[in-house]
Amino acid sequence: MGLKHVTTVEQLADKKLLSTLMARAAELQAMPLHEYPKPLQDLTICTLFFEPSTRTRLSFETAIQNLGGHLISVENAGTSSSGVKGETLEDTIKTINCYADGIVIRHPEVGSAEEAAKVSDVPIINAGDGAGLHPTQGLLDLYTIQKSKGKIDGLKVAMVGDLLNSRCVHSLVELLALYKIELFLLAPPELKIPESYLKLLKKEGITYHEYEKWEDVIGKVDMLYMTRVQKERFKFIEDYRAIKDSYILTLDLVKQMKKDAIIMSPLPRVNEIEFSIDSDPRAIYFQEVRNGLYARMALLEHIFAN
Amino acid sequence: MGLKHVTTVEQLADKKLLSTLMARAAELQAMPLHEYPKPLQDLTICTLFFEPSTRTRLSFETAIQNLGGHLISVENAGTSSSGVKGETLEDTIKTINCYADGIVIRHPEVGSAEEAAKVSDVPIINAGDGAGLHPTQGLLDLYTIQKSKGKIDGLKVAMVGDLLNSRCVHSLVELLALYKIELFLLAPPELKIPESYLKLLKKEGITYHEYEKWEDVIGKVDMLYMTRVQKERFKFIEDYRAIKDSYILTLDLVKQMKKDAIIMSPLPRVNEIEFSIDSDPRAIYFQEVRNGLYARMALLEHIFAN
Amino acid sequence: MGLKHVTTVEQLADKKLLSTLMARAAELQAMPLHEYPKPLQDLTICTLFFEPSTRTRLSFETAIQNLGGHLISVENAGTSSSGVKGETLEDTIKTINCYADGIVIRHPEVGSAEEAAKVSDVPIINAGDGAGLHPTQGLLDLYTIQKSKGKIDGLKVAMVGDLLNSRCVHSLVELLALYKIELFLLAPPELKIPESYLKLLKKEGITYHEYEKWEDVIGKVDMLYMTRVQKERFKFIEDYRAIKDSYILTLDLVKQMKKDAIIMSPLPRVNEIEFSIDSDPRAIYFQEVRNGLYARMALLEHIFAN
Repeated sequence: MGLKHVTTVEQLADKKLLSTLMARAAELQAMPLHEYPKPLQDLTICTLFFEPSTRTRLSFETAIQNLGGHLISVENAGTSSSGVKGETLEDTIKTINCYADGIVIRHPEVGSAEEAAKVSDVPIINAGDGAGLHPTQGLLDLYTIQKSKGKIDGLKVAMVGDLLNSRCVHSLVELLALYKIELFLLAPPELKIPESYLKLLKKEGITYHEYEKWEDVIGKVDMLYMTRVQKERFKFIEDYRAIKDSYILTLDLVKQMKKDAIIMSPLPRVNEIEFSIDSDPRAIYFQEVRNGLYARMALLEHIFAN
Repeated sequence: MGLKHVTTVEQLADKKLLSTLMARAAELQAMPLHEYPKPLQDLTICTLFFEPSTRTRLSFETAIQNLGGHLISVENAGTSSSGVKGETLEDTIKTINCYADGIVIRHPEVGSAEEAAKVSDVPIINAGDGAGLHPTQGLLDLYTIQKSKGKIDGLKVAMVGDLLNSRCVHSLVELLALYKIELFLLAPPELKIPESYLKLLKKEGITYHEYEKWEDVIGKVDMLYMTRVQKERFKFIEDYRAIKDSYILTLDLVKQMKKDAIIMSPLPRVNEIEFSIDSDPRAIYFQEVRNGLYARMALLEHIFAN
Repeated sequence: MGLKHVTTVEQLADKKLLSTLMARAAELQAMPLHEYPKPLQDLTICTLFFEPSTRTRLSFETAIQNLGGHLISVENAGTSSSGVKGETLEDTIKTINCYADGIVIRHPEVGSAEEAAKVSDVPIINAGDGAGLHPTQGLLDLYTIQKSKGKIDGLKVAMVGDLLNSRCVHSLVELLALYKIELFLLAPPELKIPESYLKLLKKEGITYHEYEKWEDVIGKVDMLYMTRVQKERFKFIEDYRAIKDSYILTLDLVKQMKKDAIIMSPLPRVNEIEFSIDSDPRAIYFQEVRNGLYARMALLEHIFAN
C-alpha cells in the first residue's frame, strides 16, 4: 500500500519504504533529464505557501514539472485575498481540491498540514508547519547520509545548535531512530532537544549523548548537522551573548573532524558555518539541496503512481 | 460568431451561447484528464491580478494549463514595478499584448476590464473589476444551477446578504433575467440591490420580491445564494449591530428549506454560512467551485478555438 | 564559441555575435508559434527577481516557455524567506543551481549578476542590476533599430533624459559604439552621461554631441530614445522645477522630426512621452517590447543550444 498524505514524519518512518524511496531517488538522480518518468502527466499540483520559502518551494516546483505535472502556486497565501478575507484553512483546502490533484503546503502553525489532510480528498504534502515537522527534509537528509556514506547503520551523528526548535532536526532524528546510530546532541542549555525525542531514542534503543562543548563531539562523529542559534530564542540577552559564538562551525573545528566525515545543514545559512569551509569536500550542504530534488521526485512518484 | 473579449456580463447574456457553454462545460467535466482538447497549445495566457485572489486565479490557471496553454502570471500587479512606477493600465495591457495571446484581468476599479479591452488586440477576460462585474462567476453559477437542478426555467431563486455591492450577485441576476425564474431578494435596507437591476427584472418580466426576513424566503425557494454582510458597508455601527446576525445561514434555517433546494455561495466564507451545514447534501458551494473550472475551460475553448 | 553567462554588455559587444542574434530573432519573429525550436526541452529556468518587474520578467518567462523550458520563479526575492533570513546572494545562487539549468536575475545592486556568475555552474543572465546594466535591453533595442531602419551604420541617434542613471541608455550606447553612428546626447546638466561612456565613444571614434535643448536635436536624428527625468535625482527641487517639462516629448516636437525617424523607449512611461504620440507610425515603443521577446528567445537559444 502506498502513501497518500505525507503530513508527519511517522508516515515515512518505515525502513522498507525509506529504502525504496532512497533507491529510487538515486536512480532518478543518475537518469538523463529526458528519461524522467511522467507520473504527474495531465495532473495539477498546487504549491500553497503561507510563508514564503524560496528553497523548498522551488525544489518541489522543479520536481513537479520534471515529473510532467502542471503547477499552480501561491507564493504567500498569508497576504492573499482568501487569507485576508478570513477564510479558514479548511475552506482553502477544500477549494484547492476543486482544481488540484495534490497540494504541497507550508504553514506557520504546527499541525496545519494534518488539519489540511483531514478535509482533503487529494494528497497533502507537508513542506513545513511552523515549529512542527518537515518530513521531506528528513527524507532528503537521510538520503544524503546514505548517498555520501554508503550506509546509515553504525554511524556517529551529531546534531548542533537549536535542537529545541528546529523542525529539520526533529524530522531527521525521528527517521534516524529507525537505524543503529549513535547520536551526539550539541546545544546550549536553553535549546536542548525536547524530552519527547529523548523518549523516542530510549524506546528505540539508540545511544545518545547531550553535550554543550564542541570538544566532546567534533573529532568523534561521521556526520555533523548544523543549525543556527537565534537571538530571539533567548529570554535573557546575556545568555545569548555568552554562547553566541559557541555554535558556529569554524575552519579550526573542521580541521579536528574525521577525514571522511560529512557536514550537513538545512540552510539558509547566516553565519553558523564559516564560508571558507564550503570548499572542503566534507561540506556537502549544497549536494544536500540537490539530493532534495530527487528525494522529492521519488516521493511524488510514489504517491501519484500508486 | 464567437466571443472575443468577455468584459461584461452582457456579452454572455445570450441563451443560445449560454446553453452551448454549459453543455460543453458538462462534457469537459465528464472527460478523462488526458482527453482534454488543447486549443491553447503553443499560446501564452497572462493572469494579471491587481489584487490577489487565490480562488479565481488558480481556477483560471488550472483551466489554461488543462487546455494546453503556457501561463505567465502577475499575482499582485498593484505592488509590482510597473504599477509602482505609475504606468497606466492601457500601457500595461499594450505591453502584455506583446507577450500573451490572452489576458485574464482582475482590477479594483469598475470598468477597468472594458478599458483594457479597448486597447487590446488579444482577448481580455474580466475576472472581477472592483464592485463592477465578474462575468465568469455568473457563468459558473448559472452552470451550477443547471447542473444541480437540471433546469433553470421555473425555479424560485433567492439572493441573500449584500445585494448592493456583490458583483457576483449582480452578474448572476443579469444572466438569470434571461430565464423564467422568480426572484427573492433578501437584504437589509442598507444593502438592497441597485435600482438598475430592478429595472432590468421588470423589463424582462421577471417576478421578484424584496424582503428583509428569512421567514418570507427560506421555505419557498429552490436555490439560496449567500453573500456576506460586511461591517464596513454601514454608515452607523448600530445599524450593523442590529442586523449583523440576521443574514447568517444557520442549521435551523436549513431545516426549513425544501428537501431538494440548493445552497450556493461565491466564497470565501467568513461566518455567513455555519460550518455544520457543509455536510448537508443541499450545500453545493464546493461543487460550485469545481464547476467553475469547467465553465472557464468551456469559455476559454470557445474564445480561442474560434 | 558560444556565450555562457550574459552579465555585462561587453559579453554581447561583438558585431558578428550581434548580427547572428539579430538575424535569428527576426527568423523567430516570422515563425508560426508551433514551429519554435525547443532547445530548453526538459530544462528548468529560474527567473529570480529581487525587485518586481512585470515587463522584463514576463518577457523572459514567455521566451523560456516558447522554447520548451520549465519555469520556476521568484517574483520578489527581496521579501522572500531566504532574503529575510539573511542568506547571501552567493548561497541563493548555489542553491538554485541545484534545481535550475539557468538563472535570469534582477537585483537592485550594481555588479550582482557578475557576483552570481562567479559561483554559478549554470548560465546567469542579467535582467538588470540596479543602476548598472541591462544587457538584453541593449540587445533588443539594437535589434529594434536594425529591424525598423534596416541598418545601424550611418544613423543619427539621440538619447534623451536621464543619461546619468539609465541602465538602458548605458547598455545601448555600449552596443551602438560598435557601429558607425552619430550620437546626440540630450540631457539636463545634472543628468549628463557618465564620463566613462564619453571615453568609450572617443576610443571607438564615434562622433557625439552633448546638448540641453530639443532644437539642437529634434529635426536631425533618425532615432530618438526617451527616458524619464525623475525628481528624486535632483539635489535642489528648484533645479528640477526649472527643467521638468523640458524633456517631455510632445506632439509639437514630433512634428519637427524626420518623416522616417523612429521613437523608442524602454518603458514604463509616466509622462515623458505624450499619449497622443502613440498613434504616430514613428512611435515604435510597443513594437520594441515585442521585439524584446524574440531577441531574448534568440539569446536563450544561443546559450542553451550550444
